Amino acid sequence: MPNPTAAMLVIGDEILSGRTRDANMHHLAGRLSEAGITLAEVRIVSDDHDAIVAAVRALSRDWDTVFTSGGIGPTHDDITADAIGAAFGAGVGIRDDARALLADHYARTGSELNAARLRMARIPEGATLIDNPVSVAPGFTLGNVHVMAGVPAVFRAMVATVLPTLTGGAPLSSTSTRIDRGEGDIAGPLGDLAQAFPDLSIGSYPFQKDGRFGANIVIRGQDPARVDAATAELGTLFA
Amino acid sequence: MPNPTAAMLVIGDEILSGRTRDANMHHLAGRLSEAGITLAEVRIVSDDHDAIVAAVRALSRDWDTVFTSGGIGPTHDDITADAIGAAFGAGVGIRDDARALLADHYARTGSELNAARLRMARIPEGATLIDNPVSVAPGFTLGNVHVMAGVPAVFRAMVATVLPTLTGGAPLSSTSTRIDRGEGDIAGPLGDLAQAFPDLSIGSYPFQKDGRFGANIVIRGQDPARVDAATAELGTLFA
Repeated sequence: MPNPTAAMLVIGDEILSGRTRDANMHHLAGRLSEAGITLAEVRIVSDDHDAIVAAVRALSRDWDTVFTSGGIGPTHDDITADAIGAAFGAGVGIRDDARALLADHYARTGSELNAARLRMARIPEGATLIDNPVSVAPGFTLGNVHVMAGVPAVFRAMVATVLPTLTGGAPLSSTSTRIDRGEGDIAGPLGDLAQAFPDLSIGSYPFQKDGRFGANIVIRGQDPARVDAATAELGTLFA
Repeated sequence: MPNPTAAMLVIGDEILSGRTRDANMHHLAGRLSEAGITLAEVRIVSDDHDAIVAAVRALSRDWDTVFTSGGIGPTHDDITADAIGAAFGAGVGIRDDARALLADHYARTGSELNAARLRMARIPEGATLIDNPVSVAPGFTLGNVHVMAGVPAVFRAMVATVLPTLTGGAPLSSTSTRIDRGEGDIAGPLGDLAQAFPDLSIGSYPFQKDGRFGANIVIRGQDPARVDAATAELGTLFA
């Protein structure tokens, strides 16, 4: 049975402008892989209402689960909650349980629960909250979409909360074999190997180092014995 | 006048599996920003024909220019040329000029131009070649889509070739101001500032360091004088 699928939507002008290099995608990709969930697509869009709505609808329709990061803070450019609400036709308003979490936290830290911070209690109708052990302001789950913060420490904590609630598949076994020959020399036999093991994914990732070409051959599959068999055969091909 | 727009399509299972962290997107984002071209959307899809076709069509329709990376080598998992051809309804075959480039290169380096390497001369009808000064096998441009290699050194060389052929816009001026207060404290005045400067993009990027919260406020715009004015005002707000 194929593994469940997931997609990620990164919301943030700072990635697209080149100012920041995304770290959350790489983290999520690794955790999903461990959980036996296939990350099938990633999209990065700007802080634009219509762009977020369109991307959430498409990803939510095409894949089992969607994770978003970014845009749930207190500032004027944090528009994710409204966009998710619009994507699902759900109203968005300040919710009592989210407000209580924030009120409690800011009372304890001696900060004011002002209008800006109260924006972080705006949650689409029908959503369930995702715990934020770092800075309290919650994420939320609506339908198959998990809406999480962009700050990496918070994003990671929310992934750790959400992942155990999902149905995973068989974790993939994989091997990586470095071959110090150009891809053009290995492509023929490698293609034959891929045909002989149609149940495995065999990828060739070329590299160039000190002026020489090589490739890392990654073999992935659900059955560790098959992965080992293909890797052994690969070894004999280019010994 | 708004700047021209671009999108990027990253083709590669290795990014989605978490094995590799993408470097090309960050590079392209920075170069486009310098050229006054707005990177509006990025998608990452797996080495899957239908997924590539659908993404190329959507991005080519929605944005002025599209850059792809990955999947143009000699191995069985390099399927980008066929997918791009399918997206545009163009036939794909071995082209004489591309074959001549490869034949010349491999004759010089003493390698065989075998069937696998010849795959790299398969180019959709109507495309123009993109020079590859690193490893010869060309990229190509079809319609508004520039198809480039995934190996970072080659990708960068191809970006350097293609960028001067595009019509850029006004390079964005930007400033970044670090404010050591939680976003909830600055969000109100910051929203007012954004309303007072509707021609600028004012983004708040929260961080957490040593248990304290702060935010980098990035102000971007085409008119450096306006960016400076808003930045000065920001300084007085949180002095």
